[in-house]
Amino acid sequence: MSTPEQEIDEVHERLAQLAAAGDVQALHEAVAEMHPSDLADLVESLEDEHQVLVLSALPAELASETLAEMEEGDERADLLASLDPSKGAELIQELADDDAVDLVAELEPDERRRLLEALPVEEAGDIRELLLYDEETAGGLMTTELVSVQVSLTAAEALDRVRILGREVEDFYSVFVVDAQHHLLGTVRLDDLVTADPEDVVESLVEPPTATVLPEMDQEEVGRLISRYNLASIPVVNETGVLLGRITFDDVIDVIEAEQTEDIFRLAGVGGDEEAVRYTWYESVRARLPWLFINLLTATLNASVVYFFRGTIVSKVILASVMGIVAGMGGNAGTQALAVTVRGIALARGTGRKHGLVVGRELMVGLVQGLVLGTLVSVVAFLVDGADPRLGLVVFLAMSGNQIIASFVGSFVPAVLDRLGFDPAVASSVFVTACTDLCGFLLLLGLATSILT
Amino acid sequence: MSTPEQEIDEVHERLAQLAAAGDVQALHEAVAEMHPSDLADLVESLEDEHQVLVLSALPAELASETLAEMEEGDERADLLASLDPSKGAELIQELADDDAVDLVAELEPDERRRLLEALPVEEAGDIRELLLYDEETAGGLMTTELVSVQVSLTAAEALDRVRILGREVEDFYSVFVVDAQHHLLGTVRLDDLVTADPEDVVESLVEPPTATVLPEMDQEEVGRLISRYNLASIPVVNETGVLLGRITFDDVIDVIEAEQTEDIFRLAGVGGDEEAVRYTWYESVRARLPWLFINLLTATLNASVVYFFRGTIVSKVILASVMGIVAGMGGNAGTQALAVTVRGIALARGTGRKHGLVVGRELMVGLVQGLVLGTLVSVVAFLVDGADPRLGLVVFLAMSGNQIIASFVGSFVPAVLDRLGFDPAVASSVFVTACTDLCGFLLLLGLATSILT
Repeated sequence: MSTPEQEIDEVHERLAQLAAAGDVQALHEAVAEMHPSDLADLVESLEDEHQVLVLSALPAELASETLAEMEEGDERADLLASLDPSKGAELIQELADDDAVDLVAELEPDERRRLLEALPVEEAGDIRELLLYDEETAGGLMTTELVSVQVSLTAAEALDRVRILGREVEDFYSVFVVDAQHHLLGTVRLDDLVTADPEDVVESLVEPPTATVLPEMDQEEVGRLISRYNLASIPVVNETGVLLGRITFDDVIDVIEAEQTEDIFRLAGVGGDEEAVRYTWYESVRARLPWLFINLLTATLNASVVYFFRGTIVSKVILASVMGIVAGMGGNAGTQALAVTVRGIALARGTGRKHGLVVGRELMVGLVQGLVLGTLVSVVAFLVDGADPRLGLVVFLAMSGNQIIASFVGSFVPAVLDRLGFDPAVASSVFVTACTDLCGFLLLLGLATSILT
Repeated sequence: MSTPEQEIDEVHERLAQLAAAGDVQALHEAVAEMHPSDLADLVESLEDEHQVLVLSALPAELASETLAEMEEGDERADLLASLDPSKGAELIQELADDDAVDLVAELEPDERRRLLEALPVEEAGDIRELLLYDEETAGGLMTTELVSVQVSLTAAEALDRVRILGREVEDFYSVFVVDAQHHLLGTVRLDDLVTADPEDVVESLVEPPTATVLPEMDQEEVGRLISRYNLASIPVVNETGVLLGRITFDDVIDVIEAEQTEDIFRLAGVGGDEEAVRYTWYESVRARLPWLFINLLTATLNASVVYFFRGTIVSKVILASVMGIVAGMGGNAGTQALAVTVRGIALARGTGRKHGLVVGRELMVGLVQGLVLGTLVSVVAFLVDGADPRLGLVVFLAMSGNQIIASFVGSFVPAVLDRLGFDPAVASSVFVTACTDLCGFLLLLGLATSILT
């Protein structure tokens, strides 16, 4: 059974000791059997100078995979930069080009130049070309390393080619079939090649591709296609259909996880991406404070509404108490509607399913919740305050009105954002809460002012 | 280029017409070239009786895949149940057993019995066995259909076996190697088999498995292993190492998406799972209202704190205004801390990375944000109110104090929940907001009462 945590805890101390002692041979032996993903975690937990030592001691293939499996970001880039340039170039050469590009992209410009100069011209050119694609597009995810065969080959010739290429390309999953101009025609199953008559031409075995993507396609879209059609890899082609590369499911799992983080952070009104979970306090403040300033503006607006009605509050102080309930319950209902709507949009995307009618449903939900909660709270308010039944009426109207507004804002705003091409999660719970606070205060205090005083 | 939405819009109307006209032959031709995932969306958008018609008209293989690709849930189960039992059994037989089990599990008990009775005894037995595993475990995800070879075979014999089995098992990705007692020994690469000397024994080619899972393992854990080690499939073994089945990456992508929905819904204080995005208004109210009742209790508690201090508010009514800012900004900061902490725990899980020290960082963040926001708001409050500098002091202390509390609650509570084995996302933003409201009111009004009056 694999329990990486335990293994890592055990090995970690030993490795740190060996690194401290500079015992390269023993280091080498200690990690030879480890998976690069586990080794990456170990290396990350070491001191900076030990990281360099361990990575330099490893065989190039293992060292490069380890680097590729480390968390993306500055730490990894610093480690690569502090290696001997020729060692760095050696590691980069070992990697699949999509991983190599990710690493090179993280380097400072001058370090990047130095490393690319240490690479063979052709390899450096390939990497420079891939660096031109936006990181968050299909082009930024793809590797150009793939197994392809000409459609005119015989099954026997194709199988020979697959054997040769397959040794170099890790996890190739699909054998792509192309014409003489390298246009993608489809795929051929490896077992079809094996079982076919050796003299059959590939053309008779080719299956059309389930889906293809352009290099400019957003990575989220790529993830949806892979997930929708259960593909282990998806080919990337240009406008004329020339095969440029392929994207594999493992990169897509990483994308899905990153997009998930982005959604959660946006809903919570936090700046920053996946790396934000490892920010220092200083970086955290820098990322979050701008959002809090915006919130402060809306909070101040809401406060001035309350201040405007201060006369009403003084004359009926229970309102100061109830206004928190009306605003708060609105915020909660709005956050619920928002989460369900944003998630519904995300899940429906890329399918033929219409995500219609949620605003209608949410309004109905708001109405019912408003009636239930409004009745409850107005009865309590009436009982506490005694005497004036009009207070109960005001509370009931404000409470149910704000529930309806909350449902509307929580479902309508993200739906509109989505139609306009924005991420619906930008309608964060913070924004929704600001709306329901404002409407709650206005409703309760406005109604109270006109009915009670 | 694939743009499923457009295609589906175009085909949808045609299909509905054909179904209405009962033109089976034309229906058949219209969908013959479609991917089951696209067809599933189409079928879902049809009327119930048309769904049955279309599915009955399709060739069994396509119909079964379409059913498997439809959204899990009642609609799909009803469709399967309304097919002719022998047709239903035929479709189930066509499916990989993990998909078959998912479908059968959704049926009502008596429909399930009827369908299982219509299946061949052996097939029904397999499904009954898989039904015993919890849906959210490795056993619930796995298929028993895989390609395995005996370790004692020669490469040529193994290749023959792979050719035969590979025809039956879709997307087998890995060739598993077992001993005579069916204990898993590892995997063998298909290209190694092809290129090996035909007389070599498989034993010389076997590679140990990167990771294995027990059938009881939680599906989230399985997802993490697949994602961590970039595996297209992972073998499931029992305690003695006997190979039971395998789980493929596409099932895991579905799991990751479902867990993501769960996290977002929990953070937002919504009951229900992925299906909640398709609830009717009635189901939505039923799922959400219980959460709102809990919120109502905390909101009422907070309101009574305000009510307790009503004398202070009447004598210094600007406090009614400021208390919303103090509480609200605390809620926002707490939600930020919560999102970052919950996501950090999720991302660190299954790795050797420690998710320590975030509470320390968050407290520092809270302190700095508190000083900045506290200064700002206290200056504004002082300017609006004029005269009493002690008001500025009270606001400053309450504001910065509540920011620190928000940071603490937002990071400490999920961390503790995680240690205790609960989902940290249960510490929803709703709970955090309730805490920061309470503390904000207590701090501001308490300090005001003792300092200002």
